[in-house]
Amino acid sequence: MEEQLYQTLTDHYQEMVDIRRHLHQYPEISFEEVETPAYIARYHQKLGLAVKTGVGGRGVVATLKGGKPGSTIALRADFDALPIQDEKDVAYKSKIDGAMHGCGHDGHTATLLVLAKALAKQADNLKGTIVFIHQHAEEHAPGGAEPMIADGCLEGVDVIFGTHLWAVDPLWTIQQRSGPFMAAADHFYIDIEGVSGHGAAPHTSKDAIVIGSQMVNSIQTLVSRRVDPLESAVVSIGSFVAENPYNVIAGSASLVGTVRTFKEDVRTQIEQELETIVTGTAKTMGAKASLQYERGYAPVVNDQGANDYLASITATIPGVERVETRDPIMAGEDFSAYLKEKKGTFFFTGAAFPDREENYPHHHPKFDFDERAMLIAAKTLGKAVLAYDE
Amino acid sequence: MEEQLYQTLTDHYQEMVDIRRHLHQYPEISFEEVETPAYIARYHQKLGLAVKTGVGGRGVVATLKGGKPGSTIALRADFDALPIQDEKDVAYKSKIDGAMHGCGHDGHTATLLVLAKALAKQADNLKGTIVFIHQHAEEHAPGGAEPMIADGCLEGVDVIFGTHLWAVDPLWTIQQRSGPFMAAADHFYIDIEGVSGHGAAPHTSKDAIVIGSQMVNSIQTLVSRRVDPLESAVVSIGSFVAENPYNVIAGSASLVGTVRTFKEDVRTQIEQELETIVTGTAKTMGAKASLQYERGYAPVVNDQGANDYLASITATIPGVERVETRDPIMAGEDFSAYLKEKKGTFFFTGAAFPDREENYPHHHPKFDFDERAMLIAAKTLGKAVLAYDE
Amino acid sequence: MEEQLYQTLTDHYQEMVDIRRHLHQYPEISFEEVETPAYIARYHQKLGLAVKTGVGGRGVVATLKGGKPGSTIALRADFDALPIQDEKDVAYKSKIDGAMHGCGHDGHTATLLVLAKALAKQADNLKGTIVFIHQHAEEHAPGGAEPMIADGCLEGVDVIFGTHLWAVDPLWTIQQRSGPFMAAADHFYIDIEGVSGHGAAPHTSKDAIVIGSQMVNSIQTLVSRRVDPLESAVVSIGSFVAENPYNVIAGSASLVGTVRTFKEDVRTQIEQELETIVTGTAKTMGAKASLQYERGYAPVVNDQGANDYLASITATIPGVERVETRDPIMAGEDFSAYLKEKKGTFFFTGAAFPDREENYPHHHPKFDFDERAMLIAAKTLGKAVLAYDE
Amino acid sequence: MEEQLYQTLTDHYQEMVDIRRHLHQYPEISFEEVETPAYIARYHQKLGLAVKTGVGGRGVVATLKGGKPGSTIALRADFDALPIQDEKDVAYKSKIDGAMHGCGHDGHTATLLVLAKALAKQADNLKGTIVFIHQHAEEHAPGGAEPMIADGCLEGVDVIFGTHLWAVDPLWTIQQRSGPFMAAADHFYIDIEGVSGHGAAPHTSKDAIVIGSQMVNSIQTLVSRRVDPLESAVVSIGSFVAENPYNVIAGSASLVGTVRTFKEDVRTQIEQELETIVTGTAKTMGAKASLQYERGYAPVVNDQGANDYLASITATIPGVERVETRDPIMAGEDFSAYLKEKKGTFFFTGAAFPDREENYPHHHPKFDFDERAMLIAAKTLGKAVLAYDE
Repeated sequence: MEEQLYQTLTDHYQEMVDIRRHLHQYPEISFEEVETPAYIARYHQKLGLAVKTGVGGRGVVATLKGGKPGSTIALRADFDALPIQDEKDVAYKSKIDGAMHGCGHDGHTATLLVLAKALAKQADNLKGTIVFIHQHAEEHAPGGAEPMIADGCLEGVDVIFGTHLWAVDPLWTIQQRSGPFMAAADHFYIDIEGVSGHGAAPHTSKDAIVIGSQMVNSIQTLVSRRVDPLESAVVSIGSFVAENPYNVIAGSASLVGTVRTFKEDVRTQIEQELETIVTGTAKTMGAKASLQYERGYAPVVNDQGANDYLASITATIPGVERVETRDPIMAGEDFSAYLKEKKGTFFFTGAAFPDREENYPHHHPKFDFDERAMLIAAKTLGKAVLAYDE
Repeated sequence: MEEQLYQTLTDHYQEMVDIRRHLHQYPEISFEEVETPAYIARYHQKLGLAVKTGVGGRGVVATLKGGKPGSTIALRADFDALPIQDEKDVAYKSKIDGAMHGCGHDGHTATLLVLAKALAKQADNLKGTIVFIHQHAEEHAPGGAEPMIADGCLEGVDVIFGTHLWAVDPLWTIQQRSGPFMAAADHFYIDIEGVSGHGAAPHTSKDAIVIGSQMVNSIQTLVSRRVDPLESAVVSIGSFVAENPYNVIAGSASLVGTVRTFKEDVRTQIEQELETIVTGTAKTMGAKASLQYERGYAPVVNDQGANDYLASITATIPGVERVETRDPIMAGEDFSAYLKEKKGTFFFTGAAFPDREENYPHHHPKFDFDERAMLIAAKTLGKAVLAYDE
Repeated sequence: MEEQLYQTLTDHYQEMVDIRRHLHQYPEISFEEVETPAYIARYHQKLGLAVKTGVGGRGVVATLKGGKPGSTIALRADFDALPIQDEKDVAYKSKIDGAMHGCGHDGHTATLLVLAKALAKQADNLKGTIVFIHQHAEEHAPGGAEPMIADGCLEGVDVIFGTHLWAVDPLWTIQQRSGPFMAAADHFYIDIEGVSGHGAAPHTSKDAIVIGSQMVNSIQTLVSRRVDPLESAVVSIGSFVAENPYNVIAGSASLVGTVRTFKEDVRTQIEQELETIVTGTAKTMGAKASLQYERGYAPVVNDQGANDYLASITATIPGVERVETRDPIMAGEDFSAYLKEKKGTFFFTGAAFPDREENYPHHHPKFDFDERAMLIAAKTLGKAVLAYDE
Repeated sequence: MEEQLYQTLTDHYQEMVDIRRHLHQYPEISFEEVETPAYIARYHQKLGLAVKTGVGGRGVVATLKGGKPGSTIALRADFDALPIQDEKDVAYKSKIDGAMHGCGHDGHTATLLVLAKALAKQADNLKGTIVFIHQHAEEHAPGGAEPMIADGCLEGVDVIFGTHLWAVDPLWTIQQRSGPFMAAADHFYIDIEGVSGHGAAPHTSKDAIVIGSQMVNSIQTLVSRRVDPLESAVVSIGSFVAENPYNVIAGSASLVGTVRTFKEDVRTQIEQELETIVTGTAKTMGAKASLQYERGYAPVVNDQGANDYLASITATIPGVERVETRDPIMAGEDFSAYLKEKKGTFFFTGAAFPDREENYPHHHPKFDFDERAMLIAAKTLGKAVLAYDE
């Protein structure tokens, strides 16, 4: 059975590439996905699967019943894009201004669709039921996973698997880990309220840019001085916006950032000390500032049994050269929401171009991945379905 | 003659207010003035003055020939507005989103128009010629003065006077000074080029916001440590823009600011040391940055003779309670351009609301001024015309 | 045999306390130890052991030959103190101004001496040879371990054990770990060379304090932005010295700090980027600065076999309530030098006062430990000797 | 009479140099002067003047009565040195470790002594009385002037003159100014109380060096952003001291600095905002800090009449090439104390080496001055005495 599946997938590799490149050219950012879920639904409908749309908002769930009794196994792919300007120079570059599949979700979707086609072909011999969860809005908290779960996408599911094409890990490898695998990903908004004034009269103002810059500097000490150095933590400020004519001193400034942690006490410590720095720095400079801290995705913690199972089967998959135990990463993922409800595991499929000196990181305007990784991902997820027996 | 002029102006004070409030509701920002110069031109045309439009771009020049021989005296009022959102709660609040007469140029214009009407009424008795220079784009370098001069607005002019309604000086006062009165006003652009990356992976990035914040801090030392404390200097950064999704580390940032000085060597020192800080800070953090420094208006340096003349006549004007020698201010003005060509002087007409605890500074979103100052300004400029004899 | 040893140690617990308190009152800082090694040597000589003094400078090595054949096992205790002012309010407070046993080495020494006495009593039944290594200068790189090894203290040794009384871990516990246990501990010196001047004339100076403060701030980004957040690293600046009359601007400043890491590539990255920050910040401010970076102790990496052995025996020791696998710590130890030469392991003996709300950290001016931990340490090291069979 | 005086002074120029070089080699810092006042007293006693020692502590006052009736005129010279290490390479270099005449007070003293000798020679022809005030402790607030005044040194005095040899103004010039001439000079102490800890465990500490560095940075904004740019102000931090072993995080830090202003409201503003920055920055970082602010000398404000008189006579003095109106300077002087009690004026005698590219500023370890300026100073003060007629 595996051999047949591998063959079908290999035969349809070009279709996988075509789907991915189509989606790549028409990215839709989180919570604004319209054409992408419609495309996914049509594809599954053509395969004859039962399809639900609008699941939890914009999600799509397709169900394939096998000819034999067995477990219900969910596979998940996310399909949203990022508000980044595509700066790659390739034929399949984004055609949408200010939007880009900068994280590989186009590849996840293509992988799952063609895997569904391949599994559908051998449906009579399949044990149990396969649930294809196509999730919207993974890139933007609160994310699509929670509303899809609330809308029933995990009903009856016994176990769930998911993968991320990972462009900075070597092609032909599977990267897995039991336990904590991806971080808690919170974000925050800082509003600084100073006093505007003429650029030539600083003493009549409270300069929000000077205050914000002092905050950015002080925030560095959260990780460098306040968190136990044996714990991992990141505080990044992605936006600093105070825009005025050159001769007007900024009366206000807005900062936006993210916090990544693996443990609850570190997360709470950073939230509290961030609040102290924000309000204290502003007050010291005679101004005001407020922090809005929004807890995002919980850490992705892989189930040991499910991950052991996955690790045991991947070594046999054609094309996989190495199965590695990977260090956890600081990025967040709302796959954590599924793992809070059901056992399962999330792994990375190495997708770096083997012959490139530099593979751009995820979310970089020049991000891309080696499409051959999609075939590895499809085979691995397919094998996970076929070999599952519990 | 003065008495007649003062009376006419007083009789038309309500018209002055009406014109000012009309203009206040329909502000047009620098280099985008269309309706305002048209309005001005129509007004002068109705008075029967010779009017030139499109002078130096968008300026308007009206000429009134007196019935007797004499000097040619220019009076200048600027008419552009600022890209600020009006936050006042008054009936004549700006109706244009994102534009506001936040510096009083509406009042300058109303003052000069009604003064033209009053002088026109007694034109037969006037000595010499009066040139009304209505200038566009004072708020935005390179400004409207230089192109208007290049287009001939000062041809034949012997002396020029101008005033600024000054909302933070007491009503019923005239504020004058011989010599340096307003500062050189330069502006600059800083582009920081770091490396973008995922918010969870700072080590793969060069964080442009952290670099920019360090620059802002170091730039404070230009005034606090580098410039001779006996010299006046200001370096203000009005814009800090690095906008990204919260989970993307800023790969670039743009800062915009202004520099104010009274002396050429201080100006040059700041330009040079700013360059050192910008490039050095970025390099120290493994990134790149560039400075684009644009020299703006020269300092306003009042002619001693013209200013002595002005100071001598103002004490006699009804309504003026005090004529004060004012400290120079750090703001810039392209009235400096006229003073490089012709003798003349620029003064402030106090315009603070006497009964308000707080008078908002110029360029503040709640800026306003006591309109009775317009009458003082009109009488002073009118008297300067009538009494001039050289 | 163990029972006899435990009993002897218990009977001599008060002697252990007396020795410790004597040493505590007469601390000698690293590389200045005179009375302490003399005291140790006398003690061993009275027991009849073979004693070498001046080993590697100031170290003492005592050897006890058992009555039966067996392995040669080394036990190590360090005996130097810290240049800290003792701020405790206890009867045994330091009598030496500016010196204090602020890390527990007095306890290590007392433990080992009384253990030697107890083992000497049952020497006839002992297998093999026991080497008591009393090391000077653990607190100050380059430390005493390397010269003592060069001087032969490990000759013939098969395995080495050592412990640190650990005042922030619970009493009645043993804290062990296989593999990396304590960090690489480097230190560095920064010299800033600005230009001095009168406090009223900053523009004639290059202010070394302002430059140093910018450096301290930028250095925070090494850990917060530059090191992979999954790696542990610390950069601490312990000294910032620029001392002048209040009206003299600092022409120079000296900073001293430490770097802690577990991996060579992180260590090298920090050293290199620290150099960039130091020289770049000074240059940006028109001054000069140099970095002198001194690599200190290597990480303590426990041998798996030796540590497994230790972990297996400790559970049986009377008084030990828990044997825990401890997180590695960022502090350094030159026990690493012994482990580069011989197999062995280093562990912590919990020494917090159970009934105190706050136990001061090591190196704190109020640091102290529960002396009962010495008995646990002595029993554990004694058992490790008696049970060793390889 | 002037001619005779000038001749005597010129004849004794070498003595002036000898005295200055003697004092230069044996400097005594403020409030520790013993040999210097004794030397001065002996000199005056040999001339036959009435001498009081220990005036206001360590001051010396000598009185010369002229043969004719007239005003009582005081001349003041200060005689204390600075705690600076002399780094000059000259034969008369300081022989006292850590002390140096780094401001020229040795020259002031030599000038006044030889002038006393010259005036004594023509005492019979002198009108009125001359009071020679030799003041200790000018360099260190609260200074020697106030206690000397309290001790009666100004009793009966009608007018007072003083000069400072000024090594950065051209030789052969007199630099004077009516009104504000030298600044208010305050100083302050900041104590930061963090929490000490092991260098490897920043999270257990509150790092006083990091907090102090943030303070230094924020303090820059007092001058760059908070004080009106048209006002002159300086805030300099001359000392930053936190000294610890390299592996101990600083639990405390001490900063010392000075504030210079010309106006009371600016002085008060800085004192208040400094307090806000100090306490607010510490609090924001979870620590404590306190500011002790000590008001020092008031601004030196020259009396217009006395200064006009001085300016009128200096042009006639042989050797004086130019009398210039000098910008005020940010340095402080307790000559201000005399001017609060009596009319008078304080001026600079240019003392730069004409042929050196660089003349080191006052308080620099290589500071020196052209000794020929002493002759100019003596002639000027002498003429001021002889020509005074009121």
